[in-house]
This record gives sequence, C-alpha cells and structure tokens, in this order.
Amino acid sequence: MSDTFVVVGGDAAGMSAASKAKREDPEMDVVVFEKGEWVSYAACGMPYYVKGEVEDLNDLVTVTPEEFRDERDIDLRTGHEVIGIDPGAETVTVSGDGKTFEQPYDHLLIATGASAIEPPFDGLGLDGVFTIHAMDEADAIENYVAAHSPDSAAIVGGGYVGIEMVEALSAHGIDVHLYEMLPHVLQPFGEAVAEAVEDHLREQGVQLHLATAVSGFTGAERVERVTLDDESHPADIAIVGVGVESNTDLAADAGIELGETGAIATDEYGRTNYETIYAAGDCAEARHVVTGNSDHVPLALTANRAGRAIGQTVAGNPEQVGEIAGTAIVKAFDLGAARTGIVDEEQAREAGFDPVSMTISAPTRAHYYPGASELTVTLLADRDSGRLLGGSVVGQEGAKRIDTVATALTAGMTVTELRNADLAYAPPFSPVWDPILTAAKVLEGEVADE
Amino acid sequence: MSDTFVVVGGDAAGMSAASKAKREDPEMDVVVFEKGEWVSYAACGMPYYVKGEVEDLNDLVTVTPEEFRDERDIDLRTGHEVIGIDPGAETVTVSGDGKTFEQPYDHLLIATGASAIEPPFDGLGLDGVFTIHAMDEADAIENYVAAHSPDSAAIVGGGYVGIEMVEALSAHGIDVHLYEMLPHVLQPFGEAVAEAVEDHLREQGVQLHLATAVSGFTGAERVERVTLDDESHPADIAIVGVGVESNTDLAADAGIELGETGAIATDEYGRTNYETIYAAGDCAEARHVVTGNSDHVPLALTANRAGRAIGQTVAGNPEQVGEIAGTAIVKAFDLGAARTGIVDEEQAREAGFDPVSMTISAPTRAHYYPGASELTVTLLADRDSGRLLGGSVVGQEGAKRIDTVATALTAGMTVTELRNADLAYAPPFSPVWDPILTAAKVLEGEVADE
Repeated sequence: MSDTFVVVGGDAAGMSAASKAKREDPEMDVVVFEKGEWVSYAACGMPYYVKGEVEDLNDLVTVTPEEFRDERDIDLRTGHEVIGIDPGAETVTVSGDGKTFEQPYDHLLIATGASAIEPPFDGLGLDGVFTIHAMDEADAIENYVAAHSPDSAAIVGGGYVGIEMVEALSAHGIDVHLYEMLPHVLQPFGEAVAEAVEDHLREQGVQLHLATAVSGFTGAERVERVTLDDESHPADIAIVGVGVESNTDLAADAGIELGETGAIATDEYGRTNYETIYAAGDCAEARHVVTGNSDHVPLALTANRAGRAIGQTVAGNPEQVGEIAGTAIVKAFDLGAARTGIVDEEQAREAGFDPVSMTISAPTRAHYYPGASELTVTLLADRDSGRLLGGSVVGQEGAKRIDTVATALTAGMTVTELRNADLAYAPPFSPVWDPILTAAKVLEGEVADE
Repeated sequence: MSDTFVVVGGDAAGMSAASKAKREDPEMDVVVFEKGEWVSYAACGMPYYVKGEVEDLNDLVTVTPEEFRDERDIDLRTGHEVIGIDPGAETVTVSGDGKTFEQPYDHLLIATGASAIEPPFDGLGLDGVFTIHAMDEADAIENYVAAHSPDSAAIVGGGYVGIEMVEALSAHGIDVHLYEMLPHVLQPFGEAVAEAVEDHLREQGVQLHLATAVSGFTGAERVERVTLDDESHPADIAIVGVGVESNTDLAADAGIELGETGAIATDEYGRTNYETIYAAGDCAEARHVVTGNSDHVPLALTANRAGRAIGQTVAGNPEQVGEIAGTAIVKAFDLGAARTGIVDEEQAREAGFDPVSMTISAPTRAHYYPGASELTVTLLADRDSGRLLGGSVVGQEGAKRIDTVATALTAGMTVTELRNADLAYAPPFSPVWDPILTAAKVLEGEVADE
C-alpha cells in the first residue's frame, strides 16, 4: 500500500510540498486540508490589487484548486480545518463539510502559515480598519475604497506591507499618513535604506509619523480618526500592518516543539521533534546562512523551497530545505530597496561577529550614459575574518543587485572575494566597477588583511 | 631615494595602477607614458557617442590629464611612446617631444592595450571605412555621418562592438547591414542569446547576413559598396569590428614571454617573466576562475582591477590581480544580453569537464505584475560534480542578473548551492523563484546527486 502524505495548509509551502511529493512518487496519496477557500495564492501581490495594477484577485492565484485536483491528482479539500494532531496514532482530526473525522498519515506537513498581528488598539473592530494578510482582506479594502472614497488613510506599521499599502492607497488620491513606532521605517533594512525611503515617501506627499505610537481608532459607524498619545488625526480608512505571528497553536497542542523565535523548530530537512512530522513556511523556523542559528523570516521563497524539499524527502529522496539569508526587496513608489543577511551591527555582535560596515553611493550606469541613478549600497563584514555578513541597497534602479550579495553570503565569501567577482559591465548597465564592487572595495580597506 | 614606477599606456590598467601606487605610497615617483592624447577614457562609451546619446567625447573621460598631474601628482606624459625596454638595465627608451631618451624604472607596467584587427580586406583604406577602438575613430565616424548622411551602412563583425554600432547607426536612420562570418552573432554568448538577439535585430529592421564572408569595399573617392564572394551591397559607410589583438610587440622585443593566447603571460600578481615587469589590461593574460588556465578576455573591469592590484603591489603591499570569468553584457536595442564563465559545451570539454546545460525562459517579475518580460537563462554545469561552469541571459530587462551567476562562479558553487541561494523576491522585481533559480532548479535534475 502506498504512503499517505497529509498537508495542513494550502498555501506556498503546503502546495509546493504536495505537488513535489506527487511528482516524485505518483503512487503516493497526497491530501491537503485548507480551512479557507484560497490556495496557492500570491499574498505579496495584494497591495498591487488594491493599487489597481492587478485587475482580478484571481490573477494572484498561481494554480487553481481544480488544477491541483484534476491535473496534479492531489486530494485538496478546501473549507477543511485540521483541529488536532495525534503524533502517536499518526492521525489528524479534521473539521469540514459539517462533520469531524480522523485522517491517518504516514508523513505530515504543518504549513499553517502566519497571521497578521492584532495589536491592542481601541476601535480595531470599527468598519474601515483592516489588516492585510489574507486574500479576503485585500478584496474588502478594495471594496471599501470604492464604496466610501476615503480622503485620508492611516497606515500603521512601516514594514514592507505598510510601505506597499502607502503606495497602493496614494494611487487612489488618498492623503496617506504612515505611523511607525520605531524611529525609522523598514527597520530590518537598516538606516541607509530607511532614510532614503523616508525622503522619497515625503517627496511623494506621504505624511510620516516616526517614533509615534498609535493607541487606536475612533468613529461613529466607521473609522473617522486615528488616536495617538495626545492627539488624533483624520483617517477614513486604516490599515494595520505591524507584523505577523506564526500559527503554531495546532502544533504546540500536539507537543511539537517551538523554537526561540516562537515558530516551529525544525532540522535541516524541515523535520520537527516527531520523525514523521514536518513544518515549513511562515509557521516554521529555518537556519540562517550567516549565523548558522535557527531564525524565523516568513517569506515566500523560503516557504516554496522548504515545501518543495519536504515533498521530495517524504517521497523517499531526502533533500535539505536550504538556509535563509533573510533576503527581501520592496518597492516604494519609484524606489527599490533590498536587504540580505545581517545588516544591523548590534545583531552581528550578538551572533559573535565584530562588525564593520560601509555605505557608498554610486551610479547604476556609466556616468555619461542616460538614465543613470544613484544606488546606495551598505555592506557589513566581520573585521577579523573579512567574512561578508550582509548588505542593503536602495535606489531608483538596480535593487535586484542585492542578489549578488545574497549569493556571496550563500557561498560564505569574504569581502575581498566579492570585490574580485567578475561582474558585468557595459555603459547602459553599470559603471566599470558595479556599485556592489565599489562598496566591497571600500569595505575591504576596513577589514584585516588576510 | 624613493622608487620609480613607470607605466606604459595611459588607459584603464595603466592609470588605475598609477593612481593606486601613488595613493598607497605618495613618495613614489610615478611616470606614465601615453603615445596618444587621450587617457583614462571609456572606450565602451564610443558607440553611444556615435548614437548621439553622449554629447561630448570628453564626457567619456573619467579623469583628465590635468587632474592626474595636478591632483594625483602623477608624471603623465601624453604624446610619448615607449619604443624599447631593457630589462637588464631596467630602463625604457621613450620617444616624445621630438627627442628620444632613456627612463630608468624600479617597477614597470606594460599596459599597451589592444588594437582593432584589420582583416585583409580590399579597400580598407577608402574614406568612410572605419574600425572602432580609439577615441579618434569615434569622432571620425560621428563627423563622417554628419558630413555625408549615409543611407546605408555595413557593419562587419557581429561581436558586441558590431552590435552596438548597429544600434548607433540605426538611430541615425541609416539602413544597416550586419555581416558575420560565423553562423551566429555574439558567438561567446552562446546560441540561446544569439538567436534572441538576431530575432530582435531583424524586428528592428537590421539586415542580417550570417555565415557571410566580406571580401572588401569598393568606391571611387569614398566607400560605396561592400563586396562578398559573389555579390555586393550598397554601403555609404562601413565599420569593421572583427575583434582586437593585444599590442605585444614592445614586450616581445624585450624578451617578455607571451602566453598561448598571444597576450603577455603573467602570474597571479600580474608579473611577467621579469621580476620587476608587470603587464595588465587588454595586452595581458589573466587566470580564468572556472578553468584555472591562463586566458585572454580584454574587458574594462579586468584591466581596472589588475592595474589597481599592481599599483598596490609595487607600493609594497602585494595584491593578486584576481581571476576572470569573462563576464560580459551588451545592449542590442531593447534587449540586454550577458554571459559569464564557460557557455560553450565544446570549450567545457576541452577544459576537462563533462558539460550539461539547460535553457529556460521565465518572467522577470510576478506573472500578474505589469511590465514583466521573459528572461531566457542558460546554465552550464559539470555533470559529475554539479559544479556550475557558466551561463547566459537575454531579455528586455534583468540582464544584470548574470552577476548572480558570475558571483557563484567566483565562489566555485555547484548548481544545487546556487539553487539554494536566497535571492530577492517581490512582485515588481521577480517571480518567487528568480529566473536564475528556476534555471538552476531545472539543471539540477540533470547533474549527479551529491
């Protein structure tokens, strides 16, 4: 009899695992339980739907439920919630279609994702106050904007979702205020990026309120104002994007160990403390390529890659889930900003490094070639070993150059090795020394000679 | 008494070395002899001057002779040609200002560059027939176009200079014919790139004549026709760009060893067979990062980097010149094309590998995000070890993604390691799996498991 692979959660990690397992072993029974109706959707595309650049929410779906069922022969059950796991009996308890039943498994993947954090704000339940993490919310925001034509918006949280929603709502002619508790937006991107993005947001007419704590929202029927400690501002719509938290209750209740980050602890194959139970995606930890420690960076590629690896492993061909560098990129109007590895010096010290960093600005094309803009590059290295620890870039073009740094981190390169990389040059594409190389060249002077 | 560092040739390698040596050791006497009048200029920018996108030829000069002399305290003598080297006496013979004199050196750098190959064509001396390698030629072409408003042009040679000149002359409304002896343009970029570029050139109205040998040019006063084996076509202007050859006569006459490629042989510090004589830039060999063998790829970054390293070495702080991957990028109208490492399977076999390659096409942004285009990626690996050997990309955006591959080559990564690189994803910048990762994922299936 063939094995049964049960997957809890039908998004990136879950559907990647289901698809890969079935592709590797067509005999395997693959059952996916998804409590909602959407599967395999690009949550990252939601701001662009709200902005109006993506016309149909269905465009964000990569593979439809019908395709998973009919073409990939996966037993995908939407509207089914897994409410319990019994690791001893190797069964899950499922609620759906008005009944509750037990489903046995040989291999189980927990891919329950994460949820938007709901801070203890007053008036969070008012009409017109949204979080954005699920497809239904994107639709609700879009409908609300269409129905009420808000004049003003409060975005709470200057992370990448907040920044993207600022752009999305500004496109509707709404006067957008962004509230961030910390002194800077995009905290994981470091100060050089934050300052460039803040300047650009202001240029675009966005009202920035940094180091500002929101206490809640007020309004009669619908949200009307956002309240701070000692003042309040108009807000005809509000979006709260202060981060996500892993959905780990199901796992924790079953005795599955969580890591220090609060997400599910896993080994290099994505396995939990139970031999036949795996976890992947936004609910799981992964190993950081620079520190070697477990970390939690809920991002789409990590989820896809880990899911795919686990699908291959349960099909009998073990594959490691891979390490993460926390590489992220975000568009803020005309700017692109990106980061990878360790950008924060304090974080580097905590990981046992003696960090040194440099920030440079250099043109993205030959200085004489039309259309060049400045790219600001920050690189961080360990002073003694010269090992590259991380970096960030920000500019009107070329933010994907972060991939060069991410690749160097994956390879464990030193600053000198990166400086010696033979990157591509022609006037329309780069100066002779690519900005990444220039940054490496400057930083090299600050690290110990080999 | 301080050392004297003599540099022969005032372009990328020469001026980088002179500047770096002086910066590291301000006491050093640094003398540069340049037989022409231009120094430190961006030869790669010339097509864009001819096209009209760069207004002033002086914009291509990175640092002026006056700045080298006054700000960097370099004894730069333009209009001075070194006509002999005596390695025993450690002197060079210089001709300039109407006299000939001996200049002693403690360290000597030969940075004599390369010259455009002049094939044995009839009518090469006709007015309106140009090569393009020196600044004066760019000016002459620009003047000729302005003076004679040519209706038709013959570009001979489908390398990157040829492709760039096709674009430059097309911008003047000239009917451009491109002649290439080989079956494809851009031979070092491989077939996938060549075919995409050829299709695009045709779309742009360029007449391609592949596998077509030119025998020469005819005309009364000026060039009028380009002649092939058995026919001829109108050509009111002709540009011959069939490659370059290293300027090695000066070195060879002095007993300096040339390598198998015909360029000057050097060690990892850029040193020739004489302890105190170095060579760098288009006249010198460098070590290939994939094969470990000496190779000759005359490109700007290689020249700059090697010059800089030699400047540091002669100043007493030895620095290796770095290895090359032959990374190159070229714009062809709306397309960008790039390559790195070994792209040709035959060449891989000659270097002792068992090559396997895959070509994929994938969107440059999320499929639902506006403005995405297809990037075609080819990756080549060694079947047994899985080691990445090289790759190419071509598309309307994202050609700089070749840098990810180049960095992976520098680090000696396998296809699996590259596939596990944590590259940046957000809908405006990439699909979840960057096209480079998708290519690695597909190629991974063809190499042996670790």
